Amino acid sequence: MNKRRRVIRRAISIAILAAALGFGAAQPAGSQRNQTGGADPLPSWNDGAAKRGIIDFVSRVTRAGGPDFVPVADRIATLDNDGTLWVEKPLPVEVYFLFARVRELAAKDPSLKERQPFNAAIEGDAAYFHEAGKKAVLELFVATETGMDQEQFAAEARHFIEKWRNPKLDRRFTELAYQPMIELLAYLRRSGFQTWICSGGTIDFLRVFAPQIYGIPVDQIIGTELKLESRMVDDRLVVWRLPGIEAINDKEGKPVGIDRQIGKRPILVAGNVGNYGDVAMMQYSKGRRGPSFQLLINHDDAAREFAYGEKDNASLNAAKKYGFTVVNIKSDWKTVFGVGQAAAAK
Amino acid sequence: MNKRRRVIRRAISIAILAAALGFGAAQPAGSQRNQTGGADPLPSWNDGAAKRGIIDFVSRVTRAGGPDFVPVADRIATLDNDGTLWVEKPLPVEVYFLFARVRELAAKDPSLKERQPFNAAIEGDAAYFHEAGKKAVLELFVATETGMDQEQFAAEARHFIEKWRNPKLDRRFTELAYQPMIELLAYLRRSGFQTWICSGGTIDFLRVFAPQIYGIPVDQIIGTELKLESRMVDDRLVVWRLPGIEAINDKEGKPVGIDRQIGKRPILVAGNVGNYGDVAMMQYSKGRRGPSFQLLINHDDAAREFAYGEKDNASLNAAKKYGFTVVNIKSDWKTVFGVGQAAAAK
Repeated sequence: MNKRRRVIRRAISIAILAAALGFGAAQPAGSQRNQTGGADPLPSWNDGAAKRGIIDFVSRVTRAGGPDFVPVADRIATLDNDGTLWVEKPLPVEVYFLFARVRELAAKDPSLKERQPFNAAIEGDAAYFHEAGKKAVLELFVATETGMDQEQFAAEARHFIEKWRNPKLDRRFTELAYQPMIELLAYLRRSGFQTWICSGGTIDFLRVFAPQIYGIPVDQIIGTELKLESRMVDDRLVVWRLPGIEAINDKEGKPVGIDRQIGKRPILVAGNVGNYGDVAMMQYSKGRRGPSFQLLINHDDAAREFAYGEKDNASLNAAKKYGFTVVNIKSDWKTVFGVGQAAAAK
Repeated sequence: MNKRRRVIRRAISIAILAAALGFGAAQPAGSQRNQTGGADPLPSWNDGAAKRGIIDFVSRVTRAGGPDFVPVADRIATLDNDGTLWVEKPLPVEVYFLFARVRELAAKDPSLKERQPFNAAIEGDAAYFHEAGKKAVLELFVATETGMDQEQFAAEARHFIEKWRNPKLDRRFTELAYQPMIELLAYLRRSGFQTWICSGGTIDFLRVFAPQIYGIPVDQIIGTELKLESRMVDDRLVVWRLPGIEAINDKEGKPVGIDRQIGKRPILVAGNVGNYGDVAMMQYSKGRRGPSFQLLINHDDAAREFAYGEKDNASLNAAKKYGFTVVNIKSDWKTVFGVGQAAAAK
């Protein structure tokens, strides 16, 4: 027994050492050797300030004994989802889910067609929602996604997303993730980071696809939350979805959501230009005592994805002021989309 | 390189196998071989229905290919804290923290001594709070634990708890944990479970001691939550504590808290007789499709700890009705307290 335990102990020590050296985990598909002889952790990224900044930061915080070393327990990364990890245009996927639900309801109650925002949802009128903003989306949300328990909701959301295709790109939900960000997630996890989603989307919808697409477990997702209550249904306790919003996880709500679920400032965050949704989360990370790194993705590639910004350039201005690293899709990403479903295996 | 990677792969395979067989992790202090030759995972538990029930359940859900096998991702355990993992008498530790804070405030504002519940807090009048209940405690809480940022709060709470001793048992906070429960946590984690705290105490106070005492990270703690907001202080974004309660994580609030932070029904839960606080969480676990196990701790040992129950016996009645497993401290626990601080190393 003692000999057996010694052998096992030695095996574990080797495994831990191997993991620490970065050999333990599988390399992402398509990884290549770089000039220094190591595997390139981000093969879909062009060489440039963003890629070099990421690799430099990860190297510094993982170098044991170095001045910027961060213990594994504090290697927290939080990443926005829509527009950061996957496509958010013409509208975020979840909005199409709401549209589909409104159409189902309108089949039973045709009077919905006479009222906004329901008519715009039935017509799939993206311009209306760009104009009316988040408030109109939340109105749809409360009208269509409540009055059921959490398990019923998950089944409905799964049913929708498995059939749906992005109307402009004609891609399945599994094919909408940005390949460079999938590589970043894998690289961070191999480097001992926890990778959390921190999204303005609703937590329950995110939970339906994030494990499969990003390899992120359902308990590492922070999102907008409905009001909920415990309820006995047929002598079984269920968590019931009430018609109201508990917390909007966007803008200044994101640091609060991170504090509630993680309890630590993230050392690395990623967000995107679009609705100024991620600047507060980046400032929160930047305010950490110790090293931190913030990535802001700029959608400037109409040919391969979508090109959009903000009227007042607020996110890019904040990046300049606070020293966030800007990722320009056009020049920084060699590849935008992968082959889909690859992430689930990582 | 290829040979090196093969060696490392083999080492990892052995380590994984060893972990699956339960050899990988350190055994808890005082572990002994049992009659079948394996290490006893719960040496501070007397042989009885509770201990046998736990070991039988863990064996069934971890047996690959068995009818009750549960994948690692679904091996979620949620455990109450006060009265389940550590002592909650004469009053929960956090209440003594509130008392100390009220005394500090009263030193600046003597008029507090004229008002309840402040006078009772200053006098350390446990009987008053047993009578006035949770509402009076929350009033103290809002009056004393808000108007600062999360990092200031954590520093104050840490400062308090490191000096404090339980007035009846004359033990430090690290010596108040139940040794049988520390062993249970270690056994569950070695068996691939995530061990979460789900407490009526406030999440921010729990975060100050749970990692050290239980080896539970701050992001696996569910508790009562204050209202919070993002705020810029000296050009640094902080999360600010507002004077209001966001969510009470007790009774029917516990399944909601679990859904928000974990997103899965727990397969194992532990709570205690005292204020009917854990029955909803147990029903929620019981309502899972698939195997589940519920432990209800009954405080019947005035000699070694405290003896208390509920006037209407509601928790014990629920245990009988729903089939929860009752742990009687007097007969089920060989040892109640360990040597303190042992858990941090596990």
